[in-house]
Amino acid sequence: MTLQEEIRQIGANAKNAALILAGESGAKRSNAVLAMADAIEQHKTAILDANAIDLSNAKEAGLTDAMIDRLTLTDARFKSMVEGVRQVAALPDPLSHRLAKIHRPNGLEITKKPVPIGVVAIIFESRPNVTADAAALCLKSGNSAILRGGKEAIETNKAIADAIIQGLAKAKMPNGTIQLIRTTDRAAVGELVSLDEYVDVVIPRGGESLIRAVVEQARVPVLKHYNGICHIFVDESADQNAAIEIIKNAKCQRPGTCNAVEKVLVHASIAEEFIPRLSNEAEKWGVEIRADEMALSYAPTLPAATEEDWKQEYLAKIFTLGVVPNVKAAIEHINFYGSHHSDAILTSSKANARRFTTYVDSAAVYVNASTRFTDGGEFGFGCEMGISTDKLHARGPVGIKELTTYKYVIQGNGHIRASS
Amino acid sequence: MTLQEEIRQIGANAKNAALILAGESGAKRSNAVLAMADAIEQHKTAILDANAIDLSNAKEAGLTDAMIDRLTLTDARFKSMVEGVRQVAALPDPLSHRLAKIHRPNGLEITKKPVPIGVVAIIFESRPNVTADAAALCLKSGNSAILRGGKEAIETNKAIADAIIQGLAKAKMPNGTIQLIRTTDRAAVGELVSLDEYVDVVIPRGGESLIRAVVEQARVPVLKHYNGICHIFVDESADQNAAIEIIKNAKCQRPGTCNAVEKVLVHASIAEEFIPRLSNEAEKWGVEIRADEMALSYAPTLPAATEEDWKQEYLAKIFTLGVVPNVKAAIEHINFYGSHHSDAILTSSKANARRFTTYVDSAAVYVNASTRFTDGGEFGFGCEMGISTDKLHARGPVGIKELTTYKYVIQGNGHIRASS
Repeated sequence: MTLQEEIRQIGANAKNAALILAGESGAKRSNAVLAMADAIEQHKTAILDANAIDLSNAKEAGLTDAMIDRLTLTDARFKSMVEGVRQVAALPDPLSHRLAKIHRPNGLEITKKPVPIGVVAIIFESRPNVTADAAALCLKSGNSAILRGGKEAIETNKAIADAIIQGLAKAKMPNGTIQLIRTTDRAAVGELVSLDEYVDVVIPRGGESLIRAVVEQARVPVLKHYNGICHIFVDESADQNAAIEIIKNAKCQRPGTCNAVEKVLVHASIAEEFIPRLSNEAEKWGVEIRADEMALSYAPTLPAATEEDWKQEYLAKIFTLGVVPNVKAAIEHINFYGSHHSDAILTSSKANARRFTTYVDSAAVYVNASTRFTDGGEFGFGCEMGISTDKLHARGPVGIKELTTYKYVIQGNGHIRASS
Repeated sequence: MTLQEEIRQIGANAKNAALILAGESGAKRSNAVLAMADAIEQHKTAILDANAIDLSNAKEAGLTDAMIDRLTLTDARFKSMVEGVRQVAALPDPLSHRLAKIHRPNGLEITKKPVPIGVVAIIFESRPNVTADAAALCLKSGNSAILRGGKEAIETNKAIADAIIQGLAKAKMPNGTIQLIRTTDRAAVGELVSLDEYVDVVIPRGGESLIRAVVEQARVPVLKHYNGICHIFVDESADQNAAIEIIKNAKCQRPGTCNAVEKVLVHASIAEEFIPRLSNEAEKWGVEIRADEMALSYAPTLPAATEEDWKQEYLAKIFTLGVVPNVKAAIEHINFYGSHHSDAILTSSKANARRFTTYVDSAAVYVNASTRFTDGGEFGFGCEMGISTDKLHARGPVGIKELTTYKYVIQGNGHIRASS
């Protein structure tokens, strides 16, 4: 079998499974997710042994400590992976309700029903827990899933997938419900994202270069965010003590996440007071500030920001700092440089808050809060597949609800359409 | 200016307009749509004169009568175009409500708000009324629009766009709210659908070849249906009198539409009774039936269907007829050959109706009704931009609601995220 034939066969299997899953009850899907968790637990030794092989290969290949850390399944991480799957099973069924019921004057009854999207392909990098998470989220929402992990985690991913597949067989789920692409051939990704006949959506999770490569090749719709260039604008009426705490949290609580703040804009009328203070605080946090010309005039010891800095996602304890004359300029700056992910205004002015939330064109717009809350769990949606900065279908957290679509079911009684 | 620069400039103008439109009230947007209708009415002479030029060019170019008919703006069609725009103005504002309000235990208040998608590009063929319709639907839902019509209608489209732009200026809408691409250079489409920096969605309206060309070139998300290969399955318990009327309506009421029936499947146990009757009736309607082998055994004078027939959208008074052993086989046939648009079961069995509506993977699934009802107006949504057979974002009719997305607005009070 060629690679293309192999990937097509995986696609066809997934489509067959999806057409069957469309009719499975919420209880049966939840039980299957629990069976998945049990099976992962039962295969703990095999999975950790496989992880040891990946780790030894990674060390041989000279991967960075950060990459090796991401790859490592400790006892605690294994436990939390299993717990994560059980939490997904416990979420409410996203398919049990009606979205709308329309009674037409001619007597037609139209029901708008949530249904699974169908076949979801997930392309991810080295964290092996994504294999279990993504499988659980897809199955809970009635989708079949095709998983493609990073080559560094291939042995761990195979062992987790083997466990999942055994669990699903026990729970009598159709073959093809969850499949892992077991070849590490890079060309498999291109084949997978071209399968518009079988695959309904692709969700890439990882760095910007992975996501750009997927988008370039995809003929299937993609749900994604390229990066998170998140801003905090400190308005003239902001509570400056709160502002310091919020910026610290948004930058330092987990600097490597997509909703960490990367850019801070300060209203000109408070710049003289606030910027030296922020600069002193940031030094204590171990955070580097790169400042624009105006900001430098209030904190001359800071390194200067270039135009490139405004476009860069640091994912580190660094942010760019600038001064703007008013909320309008802040909004324009954010819409131009931002990645439409998560942006905040800190202000006591309701009018400015309204203006900012109306005109900033981002998935999540905050008033007086840290940008770090953009997350399925923090929003109360349960665990998530990722964050979307796209505008179609899903914007912000992609949870089980965003893994569904809808159909219209129309009940008639011999209805025919009148001539017109 | 090169073509690429010209199209980029149009994209940038549209994005600027969209960022302003995001803050306009529903009343202001509705008034602007009414101003558009008034302006079209006031420019009637110029528009009909322009249409006369297009018609004379079309005749010279030897276009078919059907194409010339589609291109022709009669008095009645002109009036109905203006009326259509006024009806859009009268629709409820799709942006005025909240989609959800979430009170988090930590005191964060999350509001999920409908917002316009942003910049909508519409690529369409010769019917000039689309220019006015599409502009009205986009503006009503707060989007800016870039319109690209067929070259046969270029003069009419220019005249309508000129009127619209004057109307919008009076209503104080931003420049770039509605723009028409005035060059007929085919390369403009490729440039337009690559502008992912500015254009948020592309909606192609027209024949399958137009839509395939757009999808091939697009880097921007596309909302579309390729075609409508719609099925009616006549189950063994169907009311056969009603079935005859429904099939007649679904085929004959407007055979050239995407929701007209193209394929009829009959349960084997009633084939001997129903097929000869259907064949006799179809002859009276002037409808050609192409029959599979089993169907031919009950109506031997019919032409035989080939495998190709099952994949073809006739858009004419023709349908393919087949016999299936049960509802399961009907579902599998429809999921394999259909275009996931509109499919119907005619049955007295609630269990079979449920099975069919659960497992047929189409945007609209009917029980005991004609497939011709898949239409924004018939569903009660008002006039529509088209039908989507995609699964992401919009499935079925694309009306003003489907021209919106959402954002999360999060109100805090100095909230920072706890360490974890």
